[in-house]
Amino acid sequence: MRQNIYDNLEFFNAYKMLRETDDNYNDLLEQPAMKRLLPDLTDKRVLDLGCGFGNNCMDFIKRGAKNVTGVDISQRMLRAAKHNHSHGGITYIHLPLEDLHILDGEYDFIYSSLCFHYIEDFDKLISDIYHLTSNGGTLLFSQEHPIATASSDSAGHYLSNTDGLPFAYCMNDYQYEGVRSIDWFVDGVIKYHRTMSTVMNTLCDNGFIIQSVVEPVPDKLALEKRNSLSKEFIKPCFLIIKAKKI
Amino acid sequence: MRQNIYDNLEFFNAYKMLRETDDNYNDLLEQPAMKRLLPDLTDKRVLDLGCGFGNNCMDFIKRGAKNVTGVDISQRMLRAAKHNHSHGGITYIHLPLEDLHILDGEYDFIYSSLCFHYIEDFDKLISDIYHLTSNGGTLLFSQEHPIATASSDSAGHYLSNTDGLPFAYCMNDYQYEGVRSIDWFVDGVIKYHRTMSTVMNTLCDNGFIIQSVVEPVPDKLALEKRNSLSKEFIKPCFLIIKAKKI
Repeated sequence: MRQNIYDNLEFFNAYKMLRETDDNYNDLLEQPAMKRLLPDLTDKRVLDLGCGFGNNCMDFIKRGAKNVTGVDISQRMLRAAKHNHSHGGITYIHLPLEDLHILDGEYDFIYSSLCFHYIEDFDKLISDIYHLTSNGGTLLFSQEHPIATASSDSAGHYLSNTDGLPFAYCMNDYQYEGVRSIDWFVDGVIKYHRTMSTVMNTLCDNGFIIQSVVEPVPDKLALEKRNSLSKEFIKPCFLIIKAKKI
Repeated sequence: MRQNIYDNLEFFNAYKMLRETDDNYNDLLEQPAMKRLLPDLTDKRVLDLGCGFGNNCMDFIKRGAKNVTGVDISQRMLRAAKHNHSHGGITYIHLPLEDLHILDGEYDFIYSSLCFHYIEDFDKLISDIYHLTSNGGTLLFSQEHPIATASSDSAGHYLSNTDGLPFAYCMNDYQYEGVRSIDWFVDGVIKYHRTMSTVMNTLCDNGFIIQSVVEPVPDKLALEKRNSLSKEFIKPCFLIIKAKKI
């Protein structure tokens, strides 16, 4: 299934509003961790998978990238990207990641932020990415953490103590991979749960060398901005992996 | 802390009895998964860390290993190993894994079953192992899964439905690493919780290339022998990693 939830107007507007606040999980937790793992981008050919609003594409240009290709399934997202983050070195391409095999070219750095959990065939995705990566090139991606995507029913939630503070996380079905339907802005957003081992083995089996794995925790500043982030010490919500093709 | 719980007579006897039953988690879940990941051992120099009763040492000899060195902290375990699994090709050494740096030699295959979660300084352990591994050599180890070791209070347990069947797992403190004290046969057995990312990064940072990650689930036969293993579909209890030195 190729889900283009970001072209759903109701979802798009709600998501846009979320990202425009300065206390969202991406900006406080995921993006700082991703930024710390960025390689030197000077003169690098960069591919951003699920580039969304294009802000990372522009950031890569500012960091010295030779050129950046931003790919997204959502026309609405790409219109916003072209409007706000246009640059001679950036090319935006409208393409579902399921069709990545039709892209050609070679990239020194392939980046994807919180997108892969929407893709059903992870093995094909990683295989396609591997073929687009130059020798010595790097893949850096984030996704929702397997512990966070595991539950297929209401068991995936925090338990609170008598003061209403979360103290534990309750999950099920970790070992059953596949579709998870969640209600996020709109009903029935489809994600795919994969175990930690499947994520790792898919990378290894396709030839990538895992270099770094991060399950980010919020820093003091982030916690001051958004106290609910303290839940991230109970269980991680994001998984970030940096891998290399040699 | 160097914990030698296996020399505690009460613990030793209870553990021995557990391993002698044919429906324990090791034999039904962990060992079959480990066996599937064994490389060709013909003429290989093998090191078994936490060799316990020595049954795997003997198995490696039967699989053609040139020689096997079994290391354990417990004199009581080693006495049983020498009694039941003695062989000209096997050398048993009494040594805490914390002192692995005093061992020399070079090994083509280093194996450890459910032992590393007792060791506080994982980085030193992996560094010591790396120095004992030959170029092209393999490390294969199992440990309790980070999801299983996470909880530092009573939150780490299964929730049951009205029929008494477990349907979800409840955990906390995943991101807080360190000592976990559990009551298992005797009170206050010490284990160390490490996140998945710490385990992976410690291997990568010390030079190992991760090859395979397994979170074993029971097969049909195992489930028939022990129905409680169905809980392993809710959350994994073991983590197995195979890594290579190149």
